[in-house]
Amino acid sequence: MQKYYHSAPSVLRSQFRSGQLVRPTSGMCGGYAQGNLVVLPRELAFDFLLFTQRNPKPCPILEVSDAGSREFVQTAPGSDIARDIPLYRVYENGVCTGEYTDVSPFWRDDFVSFLIGCSFTFESALLDEGIGIRHMEMGCNVPMYITNIPCRAAGAFSGPTVVSMRPIPHERVVKAVTVTGRYPKVHGAPLHIGSPEMIGIRDLDHPDFGDPVEIREGEIPVFWACGVTPQAVVMNVKPPIVITHAPGYMFITDVKNSELSD
Amino acid sequence: MQKYYHSAPSVLRSQFRSGQLVRPTSGMCGGYAQGNLVVLPRELAFDFLLFTQRNPKPCPILEVSDAGSREFVQTAPGSDIARDIPLYRVYENGVCTGEYTDVSPFWRDDFVSFLIGCSFTFESALLDEGIGIRHMEMGCNVPMYITNIPCRAAGAFSGPTVVSMRPIPHERVVKAVTVTGRYPKVHGAPLHIGSPEMIGIRDLDHPDFGDPVEIREGEIPVFWACGVTPQAVVMNVKPPIVITHAPGYMFITDVKNSELSD
Repeated sequence: MQKYYHSAPSVLRSQFRSGQLVRPTSGMCGGYAQGNLVVLPRELAFDFLLFTQRNPKPCPILEVSDAGSREFVQTAPGSDIARDIPLYRVYENGVCTGEYTDVSPFWRDDFVSFLIGCSFTFESALLDEGIGIRHMEMGCNVPMYITNIPCRAAGAFSGPTVVSMRPIPHERVVKAVTVTGRYPKVHGAPLHIGSPEMIGIRDLDHPDFGDPVEIREGEIPVFWACGVTPQAVVMNVKPPIVITHAPGYMFITDVKNSELSD
Repeated sequence: MQKYYHSAPSVLRSQFRSGQLVRPTSGMCGGYAQGNLVVLPRELAFDFLLFTQRNPKPCPILEVSDAGSREFVQTAPGSDIARDIPLYRVYENGVCTGEYTDVSPFWRDDFVSFLIGCSFTFESALLDEGIGIRHMEMGCNVPMYITNIPCRAAGAFSGPTVVSMRPIPHERVVKAVTVTGRYPKVHGAPLHIGSPEMIGIRDLDHPDFGDPVEIREGEIPVFWACGVTPQAVVMNVKPPIVITHAPGYMFITDVKNSELSD
């Protein structure tokens, strides 16, 4: 168990805010939900919000800020969206132009911030059921694949669904479905079970993002909609400016994972 | 069972479209979901979409159109949003300026249409469980009340939650909760059970909208979030133009009620 497992979210957010602590957030604040951040100018925000509404499995919204606000008032009262993540990325015209521990110098009055549920929550539910998570055991990133399942487009935003894959022992697959299905706000039940070719995945050993993981005898690859989907879709549009968390450096909320279950 | 119970949704929509048939849609196209319509200019659409995202119980979204589109492509392919409801209302600056069977003369390229789930779906699920619906038995409107439960504001949109009330025999209340809880896209589980004063309702005999209904010995008033909430909230803002369905004249979709359950 890592050092910050028992830390309170607000305490860690203030350490991130001061720049004292810059490290990936996996395993921090056990029991609390973490989220993906996408910050966009208001003129793109309607189409993006509509995109998330039409594609709730890859884009489960935890909170959307008011335009110009730097606080997630519901999920993290007192937070500063521009400073409370350890590491941010700034994209200009679709190109990552830098990583920063503080993006307040970039902030604009027309920014709208989207906090999107992440798989950490349902992974912790799987672990509680005694279902192991291979990429955690291997100490690497979850493998992610671009599928042939199109998202429903909204305005300029469109693209394929990206999935993450976890090998599950065949006798635990049904349990993995029902357990994660209780968490619709963090991707929910799998999109697909087994037969990767049916969703356009050719080679599990060569994921499009993340790292390959071992699939053992008797295990079935199970695919969940992935929060990389909305980021990939935003990048396609090459907006003048977008701010996101850096991969692995998430926004830690005050919301308990258990509050996200049905 | 009324005459149009077995009609196909697309057939009735085309009869509405031609202006042949103008009557309330309750009981039509049994098994298919009906929805509330709100049409707004795009400049208000982001805040309204955000309002529905923050208040999913009173504002369960079935579909949001692209700006300018007159078709609900997912829930009613081939539909014409401006003509496929039997009767519409046009509001200008918060005042109802007319009822029309065809609002295409008012249509603008920047209109965004919101289709919001309605209680007909969960009422049919209650009936399937043998739980009677008093206002149906009495042949009147469901009683609706303004509560002291504030919605979460979004931009200009704010206001109290409006609830509908159905008296349920005390021994069926738990079943009524679990049955309607399966339909989160059409208001879902109740907001409150019994004790109307706890949510700011003073007198059940004087609803704010609709008609009072009898509560019999051994029955408990059960309150569900109501689709009148978003309409009331929109009217508060007095937008230059808003188009809605006329009360009781809903948009009939091709979506089966059963598809809306979890």
